[in-house]
Amino acid sequence: MTTSNNSKGISRKDFIKGAAFGIAGIATIGLAGCSTDAAKNNPPAPAPAEGMAWDHETDVVVVGFGGSGGAAAWEAGTAGSEVIVLELAKGAGGSTNICGGLVTIGGGNALQKAAGFEDSPENFYNYLTAALGTGADEEQCRIFAEQSPAMYTWLTEKIGVKFNRGVNPLWPDTPNPTAGLTCTGDEYHMDYAAVSKAVHRTGWVDSETRPGGRDGSGFFQPLLRAVEALPQVKIMYETAGEQLIYDHDQKRVLGIKAKKGDKTLSIKARKAVVLTAGGFAKNEDMVRTYCPAFNGVLALGTAGDNGAGIKMGQAVGAALQNMHMAFSTSTAYAYITQEGCAGGPLSQGIIVNQFGSRYVAEDHYHSWIAEYMLQNHQPQKHLPSYLLFDAQMYDTLPEKSKESLEKAKVTKANSIEELAKALSTSEGVLENTVQFYNSKAAEGKDPLLNKQSKFIKPIATAPFYALEIVPTSMFTVGGLRINTKAQVLSAETGAPITGLYSAGRNAANVIAQQYGGSGTSVATCFVFGRIAGQNAAAEAAI
Amino acid sequence: MTTSNNSKGISRKDFIKGAAFGIAGIATIGLAGCSTDAAKNNPPAPAPAEGMAWDHETDVVVVGFGGSGGAAAWEAGTAGSEVIVLELAKGAGGSTNICGGLVTIGGGNALQKAAGFEDSPENFYNYLTAALGTGADEEQCRIFAEQSPAMYTWLTEKIGVKFNRGVNPLWPDTPNPTAGLTCTGDEYHMDYAAVSKAVHRTGWVDSETRPGGRDGSGFFQPLLRAVEALPQVKIMYETAGEQLIYDHDQKRVLGIKAKKGDKTLSIKARKAVVLTAGGFAKNEDMVRTYCPAFNGVLALGTAGDNGAGIKMGQAVGAALQNMHMAFSTSTAYAYITQEGCAGGPLSQGIIVNQFGSRYVAEDHYHSWIAEYMLQNHQPQKHLPSYLLFDAQMYDTLPEKSKESLEKAKVTKANSIEELAKALSTSEGVLENTVQFYNSKAAEGKDPLLNKQSKFIKPIATAPFYALEIVPTSMFTVGGLRINTKAQVLSAETGAPITGLYSAGRNAANVIAQQYGGSGTSVATCFVFGRIAGQNAAAEAAI
Repeated sequence: MTTSNNSKGISRKDFIKGAAFGIAGIATIGLAGCSTDAAKNNPPAPAPAEGMAWDHETDVVVVGFGGSGGAAAWEAGTAGSEVIVLELAKGAGGSTNICGGLVTIGGGNALQKAAGFEDSPENFYNYLTAALGTGADEEQCRIFAEQSPAMYTWLTEKIGVKFNRGVNPLWPDTPNPTAGLTCTGDEYHMDYAAVSKAVHRTGWVDSETRPGGRDGSGFFQPLLRAVEALPQVKIMYETAGEQLIYDHDQKRVLGIKAKKGDKTLSIKARKAVVLTAGGFAKNEDMVRTYCPAFNGVLALGTAGDNGAGIKMGQAVGAALQNMHMAFSTSTAYAYITQEGCAGGPLSQGIIVNQFGSRYVAEDHYHSWIAEYMLQNHQPQKHLPSYLLFDAQMYDTLPEKSKESLEKAKVTKANSIEELAKALSTSEGVLENTVQFYNSKAAEGKDPLLNKQSKFIKPIATAPFYALEIVPTSMFTVGGLRINTKAQVLSAETGAPITGLYSAGRNAANVIAQQYGGSGTSVATCFVFGRIAGQNAAAEAAI
Repeated sequence: MTTSNNSKGISRKDFIKGAAFGIAGIATIGLAGCSTDAAKNNPPAPAPAEGMAWDHETDVVVVGFGGSGGAAAWEAGTAGSEVIVLELAKGAGGSTNICGGLVTIGGGNALQKAAGFEDSPENFYNYLTAALGTGADEEQCRIFAEQSPAMYTWLTEKIGVKFNRGVNPLWPDTPNPTAGLTCTGDEYHMDYAAVSKAVHRTGWVDSETRPGGRDGSGFFQPLLRAVEALPQVKIMYETAGEQLIYDHDQKRVLGIKAKKGDKTLSIKARKAVVLTAGGFAKNEDMVRTYCPAFNGVLALGTAGDNGAGIKMGQAVGAALQNMHMAFSTSTAYAYITQEGCAGGPLSQGIIVNQFGSRYVAEDHYHSWIAEYMLQNHQPQKHLPSYLLFDAQMYDTLPEKSKESLEKAKVTKANSIEELAKALSTSEGVLENTVQFYNSKAAEGKDPLLNKQSKFIKPIATAPFYALEIVPTSMFTVGGLRINTKAQVLSAETGAPITGLYSAGRNAANVIAQQYGGSGTSVATCFVFGRIAGQNAAAEAAI
């Protein structure tokens, strides 16, 4: 690996042994003089700095121990590589451990089959490319759909994640809130059911840490144990990845500088660094800069979602993708879902903007609704929308929904005209919206927005209710641009940056303008985290 | 500037003299050994590579000779700096020279005053922050509004740009198509007129190259002559800026590698490099990656809008901003504008989507309309929208509009019901849209979308026309993140990257989700190009 390239009497290797490196990158250098163009265009290729003073050396450094970091570490370690996992928090978990416990599992798996759903990677792919909307990368969707069944098998057989049997049925059937298979996405929305056979595709696990609850600890804790059981994997907590050590001549990542307390450690990655440090929802400056439509909305995630992993990639010239997109939800969530399942009792209502106009089908996935709420009503976007329903719909609500409505901002009136006046919607608009909706609802149709007929019912029985709804929370889905091997791509050349991988919310992948359904993010963490770990382990060591 | 930092018997300075640099950055290095943490955390500060072999040396290198590059070169040269301007084409001009000859001039200037318009930087600022929508940077808007009067004075008094006297009035007054002052933006739209007193704010110049025409050569050719007249400025045509030469220890840009034919030149910039190389509309991969909503729409601009300047910044760790946003227009343009002035005869019509629903006020700036057309109707966004009007409106059209309608895709019917059937809009939606619109139009109101009353008229006289309208062209508005000094900001630290400036479409600045009006891009080129040139010239030379 060492080229002996002498100049001024010292060998490259000797020189490098004594070299310090600057904050932004490693010191390596071509030593030959270069007074001619030919020499400048063809600089001598120096060897990577073998003799540098490293605090630690390993094959693969994984930065961030959430779902994607865990998957990457497990794969790299299982493949026989030495792995160091850096985690800035005191313990592992990241956003994966604290999420709702939902993970997208499509393409045909045991849970789907047991419930009588016929799915395939192709059918899943067709759903993804339609439902994820603008910016959905077809190649990434293809890999994600194809790898989904294997990801399910890996979770259950290798990691030990347990999914309960049983299916959570769609509204209005009685919920089965302990079922292992539910449907939180847009699979049954008419626009997508037309291009992809509708099936349930969301796995849901019981919590390991909150008895009787359901959350991401149900898959993260088994993953943590599985990673801890690998002797090749060393986990360093309270250690934050800070800067990639990059050889600008060789154009490759050599390792990473990390901070533990006030100490800076230099860690060599003989094979690769895998950035799985989360998104940037908690970095206000980045949110304002890259996804301004979501600025000011509460950020979901952990303190680790500070964009550090994305910025580390940018510092070595990585391209970005889908940075302006985000998952979001609104105060409508509790009423338009049923025990985590898409479509709830108040999907029978209608959502109107501040003018009194409908703009989104009420049976859409809740992130779709929140995003439209945020983005489609400029310059009035800071005004609320309303979820309108009538007395009959109110009466069918479960008690806990009625109780939560008591605490919410609800306007009640005996006629639509009175309601319009109370809400100060634009003259006649709400009245026309309801009248037209009702005229078609009587036939079970929604020609304006194509809602499923089971959610269509005239809004006809006084009193009428208008629940104020606003976007409440978000997390980012954009990040470093990767290819289907999870290699980070250079902005300059479009080619992979040697020695650098990324997955999870640190990278962009399938999630685009829309979000496919709850659990999509966790599923991308597992699928692309595994891919990153496998490929990082397969790199030649330097 | 040189630190004498010995190691293994050679001085740093001697060493650097013989150094080659790699493709991605300059070779500089801290020579001290570093076996302790302290040494690693505090690397010796090396001096910039003084002895490198440069093909050219200058104070300021300007990359790209369009409007922003010209403004930057003029300012830096006039301030006494030596300047090299690199232009990849055979001649100067970029997109500025071939644009429509419109430039936003607000804040109060001689043309506005002569026409009786009272404007101020504050009034202009209020318009910008309202009309540019999500992502509008308040600090940049402030500088842009404040600098606008000075930019007008500079154009007319220093550069020699000539604006005809006279005002192009708003529809339905008779157009004055040779006037120097027009209004192409959203100034008179009711949403913005409510927060900023409506005034004309678009300068329009005669072409220098097409007698009788009007285009950007009217300001670019005088700028070209003014720059050529500066002895300090050297222009190198057919020379493409390729890669910044960056000192990773000092963290500063030292110069640039440029390609002339098959020769690579190394050019030292003692003070700074100013990236004014245009946007990325002509780079399909970047459009798909960064502004996917506009993918597939014809790109406006020159071959130089290939994103190279943005990628050069990314390669040294620059942050990005507003990359997902773009200017766009549609086939509606010819009918909803009047001789370049906002609001035309068919703004009296209504724009409906493929379902038959209105979604945008027809008197909005045409880019606003096109963007809504592209973004707001997923997953059906590839279906056309329609501009609907009636026989009375048709009759008032000028002959050339009637002729162009002959060649366009127009559906004609004797009733709205028939039209709905012919267009296959959703059951009853178009009928309801027209009926509700007409019911309020009779009172001169548009409660749904707040169109100005002069454009409101019932669509009542058969036959009825539906012109198919689709987005036709776009250019990108996002780029490197800069501060109000036009310094490029690091993604990693948020601080300026020493020695690097950017302006024009190479950088993000005021243009955000919406576009303020025709000429906004050119105006940002001049305002931020000047700022970049002034500040680059004021840097200490290395």
